[in-house]
Amino acid sequence: MNYVEALQKRYSVKKFDKDKKIPAEILNDILEAGKLSASSLGLQPYRMIVVESDEMKEKLIPTFYNPSQISTCSHLVVIITKKKIDETYIGNYFNHISETREISLENLQPFKKSIDFYMTLNSDEEMLHWNEKQGYLVLANLMFAAALEKVDTCPMEGFKPEEISEILEIDNETEKVTVTLALGYRAEDDIFQNFKKVRKPNERLFKFI
Amino acid sequence: MNYVEALQKRYSVKKFDKDKKIPAEILNDILEAGKLSASSLGLQPYRMIVVESDEMKEKLIPTFYNPSQISTCSHLVVIITKKKIDETYIGNYFNHISETREISLENLQPFKKSIDFYMTLNSDEEMLHWNEKQGYLVLANLMFAAALEKVDTCPMEGFKPEEISEILEIDNETEKVTVTLALGYRAEDDIFQNFKKVRKPNERLFKFI
Repeated sequence: MNYVEALQKRYSVKKFDKDKKIPAEILNDILEAGKLSASSLGLQPYRMIVVESDEMKEKLIPTFYNPSQISTCSHLVVIITKKKIDETYIGNYFNHISETREISLENLQPFKKSIDFYMTLNSDEEMLHWNEKQGYLVLANLMFAAALEKVDTCPMEGFKPEEISEILEIDNETEKVTVTLALGYRAEDDIFQNFKKVRKPNERLFKFI
Repeated sequence: MNYVEALQKRYSVKKFDKDKKIPAEILNDILEAGKLSASSLGLQPYRMIVVESDEMKEKLIPTFYNPSQISTCSHLVVIITKKKIDETYIGNYFNHISETREISLENLQPFKKSIDFYMTLNSDEEMLHWNEKQGYLVLANLMFAAALEKVDTCPMEGFKPEEISEILEIDNETEKVTVTLALGYRAEDDIFQNFKKVRKPNERLFKFI
């Protein structure tokens, strides 16, 4: 199956087959695709909580407006974005580049200076939005990889932020739950799998110049 | 090559081989992956301009802070986001669903009502940010598909919004240039291809519960 076909078969699952779990090896590769996602300046201003225990899924059900995906999915990935990128975070990032690439911190100074400057341009709110957009790149990579693995997904934005943060013990001063992705295998009786995909016609989506 | 390997080989190209163009069939499949991207409520609040003429690329060079990708890429995709989603847009969307899926507009009313309600919850600014996040899903899909096709890319946020909008004749009242993606084939002397990929270690990126 090529990737266009895989993406055509992807749809937002409303009900998963509760008895089918994603094998560990496949889940690892999907998460690896999330890890390998591009992010602006390479900063990766996010982390993920992977919910696999039924007990924890049970606790999270009331925090979602559409609970059927949470109660039936194999795994739920919660993408959590950093609110600010501070000096310590940038410092750690550069130490990590320096170690991985065996380049001295001194030689990385021009890149660091450009990042430091960029950080001064954004308000706290703009920074959060920018970070969240990077989180959406991760979300898309997870969905794409899952489609290639014939694993079904449903991206979910409809949750109660305060309640989900409390259950997942997230400090809302420094982090925000940006978006979540339920993964598993579609239930046979999920009627949404039979609906034709609706996409704007090419002439309204693309302009070639 | 599996997708994990393909994503590992992806890097943000600084200089493309100017003489290598992406074959039309491959470009079409990559754009199709962008088209098949998920979007919240299926609204696809964006469109893309695909710049292929050298003349237009030339014009755009001064609008980017890093011009080397623009002057050497095969194609540049500009992702443009809608600022607002108004009643007309939603009306057209539902007509389109109704035709594609052969469901009466009446039967779509519950879904339409939930979208109408959702629209009242967001300020203009929140709506724009929400739309832009959907645009980032498209960006990730384009990069992922390109990686599978061994086409190289560089996502670029560093452009002058007013100037790029003017050249592309975008009405800033209703739309915004959100992000761009240069595509092509890496130049042999682009030294960045030799750098090790830097990613947070798993224990800082993932928490399993």
